[in-house]
Amino acid sequence: MHFAVFFFAFALTGTTLALDNGLMRTPPMGWLAWERYRCDIDCENDPKNCISENLFMDMADRLAEDGWKELGYVYVNIDDCWSSKQRDDQGRLQPDPKRFPGGIQKLARYLHDRGLKLGIYGDMGKLTCGGYPGTPLDKIELDAQTFADWEVDMFKYDGCYSNATEQEQGYPLMSKALNATGRPIGYSCSWPAYQGGLPPKVNYTQLGEICNLWRNYGDIQDSWDSVLNIVDWFFENQDVLTPAAGPGRWNDPDMLIIGDFGLSMEQSRSQMALWAIMAAPLFMSNDLRTISSGAQSILRNKMAISINQDALGIQGRRIVKEKSGIEVFWRPLSKNASALLFFSRRTDMPYRYTTSLSKLNYTTGSYKVFNVFTDEAASLKDSTEFVVSVNPTGVVMWYVSAPAKFNLRHGKKFQKKLINDLYVFM
Amino acid sequence: MHFAVFFFAFALTGTTLALDNGLMRTPPMGWLAWERYRCDIDCENDPKNCISENLFMDMADRLAEDGWKELGYVYVNIDDCWSSKQRDDQGRLQPDPKRFPGGIQKLARYLHDRGLKLGIYGDMGKLTCGGYPGTPLDKIELDAQTFADWEVDMFKYDGCYSNATEQEQGYPLMSKALNATGRPIGYSCSWPAYQGGLPPKVNYTQLGEICNLWRNYGDIQDSWDSVLNIVDWFFENQDVLTPAAGPGRWNDPDMLIIGDFGLSMEQSRSQMALWAIMAAPLFMSNDLRTISSGAQSILRNKMAISINQDALGIQGRRIVKEKSGIEVFWRPLSKNASALLFFSRRTDMPYRYTTSLSKLNYTTGSYKVFNVFTDEAASLKDSTEFVVSVNPTGVVMWYVSAPAKFNLRHGKKFQKKLINDLYVFM
Repeated sequence: MHFAVFFFAFALTGTTLALDNGLMRTPPMGWLAWERYRCDIDCENDPKNCISENLFMDMADRLAEDGWKELGYVYVNIDDCWSSKQRDDQGRLQPDPKRFPGGIQKLARYLHDRGLKLGIYGDMGKLTCGGYPGTPLDKIELDAQTFADWEVDMFKYDGCYSNATEQEQGYPLMSKALNATGRPIGYSCSWPAYQGGLPPKVNYTQLGEICNLWRNYGDIQDSWDSVLNIVDWFFENQDVLTPAAGPGRWNDPDMLIIGDFGLSMEQSRSQMALWAIMAAPLFMSNDLRTISSGAQSILRNKMAISINQDALGIQGRRIVKEKSGIEVFWRPLSKNASALLFFSRRTDMPYRYTTSLSKLNYTTGSYKVFNVFTDEAASLKDSTEFVVSVNPTGVVMWYVSAPAKFNLRHGKKFQKKLINDLYVFM
Repeated sequence: MHFAVFFFAFALTGTTLALDNGLMRTPPMGWLAWERYRCDIDCENDPKNCISENLFMDMADRLAEDGWKELGYVYVNIDDCWSSKQRDDQGRLQPDPKRFPGGIQKLARYLHDRGLKLGIYGDMGKLTCGGYPGTPLDKIELDAQTFADWEVDMFKYDGCYSNATEQEQGYPLMSKALNATGRPIGYSCSWPAYQGGLPPKVNYTQLGEICNLWRNYGDIQDSWDSVLNIVDWFFENQDVLTPAAGPGRWNDPDMLIIGDFGLSMEQSRSQMALWAIMAAPLFMSNDLRTISSGAQSILRNKMAISINQDALGIQGRRIVKEKSGIEVFWRPLSKNASALLFFSRRTDMPYRYTTSLSKLNYTTGSYKVFNVFTDEAASLKDSTEFVVSVNPTGVVMWYVSAPAKFNLRHGKKFQKKLINDLYVFM
């Protein structure tokens, strides 16, 4: 298959089907409370970690002051367990008064003053997953307006305690209701995750028209097994999922757990790289107040972020699955470039994988290759055999620039440099 | 059950059944090639990592020069794939001449000159697991003498390609043959791992009489799943396994994979702590030339090492298994002290576990408690309820000193200090 054709087809679909609110032309980035903080409402015994305005203001401070914002991490998203157990006397949702004494609007302004955006959470059922008041069909317009009044910038609509019929009505209705407020509010739909994530139960064309992103699959947990389980599902179903993604409409494999407790450094790089290949929303769920420098350097990797945020918005694919446990992923990028990812599922030792760009379907030419996690570079002819050494549960990720057709002499010079992870056999 | 009784019974058995070579009165510590380097014999393309004398000399240099030796890590152990595919013209094993041009004896002297010890590997079958010449019954005396001639200090006898009858003859025969050389050679038997690790197929009384340590279960891999799988098996079978261990005779749950690719920092602390509770041999299998400072600080933790190396040599037990995923382990130590380990199998967020020393079967009194991984201390009455916050896949490990029966006033003063991971409810 020729890349150019592939490209063009996706680029076209990418511009036609997205929710017409103009938002999230690249995958949204920011921070989301759920995986790390769950429904911790015990502010008495756990004041630094409970779901409260202090937690979100703390994270906002870190995003704004520690340079995360400049990298694109701008959303600060509340998840479940933020509200009072009762609606107010006008029937509106209201935050828990002890944990959010300043109210949501004040919190939104705190974020906006720092160049950040606020996300909030609701659920289609009578109750949220955590047992707080839901937003069933008859409350959709009211709650959408409440969120707009509070100057919220994003809304995640979960699906606990709702059935397929209600979802079929409710998810499109919320989309309309949010748009009708006149405030641009990014819209995250959990709908497909509640319907198995696959056609015919899930209609990805429709999702692209009503939602900016959607959770296709189960919640991530703080473990490598969970990351692998998600990766397996997304790439086993890539033929269904990749056409659904594009600017303004994204598959969401769930939060980044980098900086938490369950991933090694190798596995953290793997999650970052695989999420970049998938054009996935990058919502960290971690403690930005105490995160290690190692985890930070992965989350702040500019080349990984720029691959994730590529303007074409084409979701990448797995193109090789070897018996050795090595897999190769590929994502086409703008400027005729691409990302290549070598991933090892092995649990023994670094594996030396031999291949060539032509074996990976690259057309004839000389390519410039940048190693995303080591910053090294080399030139590589399509026909040149090379070896990448991939660590157990780790990745080697390359940004591959467009083929330069007439620079063979230049290319040869570059090929003489041996770079880490890339031993070019001359 | 009263601790004192427990203690005494174990201490007695500990001094009677061990292999009578006087070695390994505490669990052996050092470095073993297998998990990290496997059967990598490709010295042409992977010269730094292939099984060769250079690898073992590199690791010896690190152990001797970087302070590992002083902590107790003194063995440098060769595993499979070291030998030539043919025995020499006198029928003796010989090392691969390209990869070990200096020979094993020279390597042993290189280690001895640095205060280190050399371990080597053989197999009861016609071939080793990796396909190199084995040490079947008729070669046992010859090979034992060869190892002694080479001034080897430890021998691991694997069991690939051998059957139960051969093992029943061979493992005791090798024990005698090693002793007959007159050289003290620590003896590691893989026998029980090949017979399911449990009675009646495995006779732990006999093992204690002929081996210094034995592999009870399958090989560790570089993953948290593998560590959990091993931990599950060892503690599910603790009633069989703990009586088998004592000075000179140790259950071996296999190598430490801390510093490799698959474990997070939390999980690395957990492996170190659980291996200390188990009185397990501490053989690192990692790259000491490039190991991170984080992994080093765990492997170099003096309190964890001293718990592992406690002179009584009593293997610890799991004493609590909560539905919440919290487990508590306990190991009695000399000077009437003990180690307590709180472990979380959760994959969500830190869990606040409430208990008291009396609930954990401690007798009345005031105890001094040291947090192994934070160096903090506090005093605690047996009846005082406390909360430990245990991270997902992580541990909180305490050294608990003997109860001081008459220092209640002193104890109260200490109790007023809040320490990290230990919030004492007064």
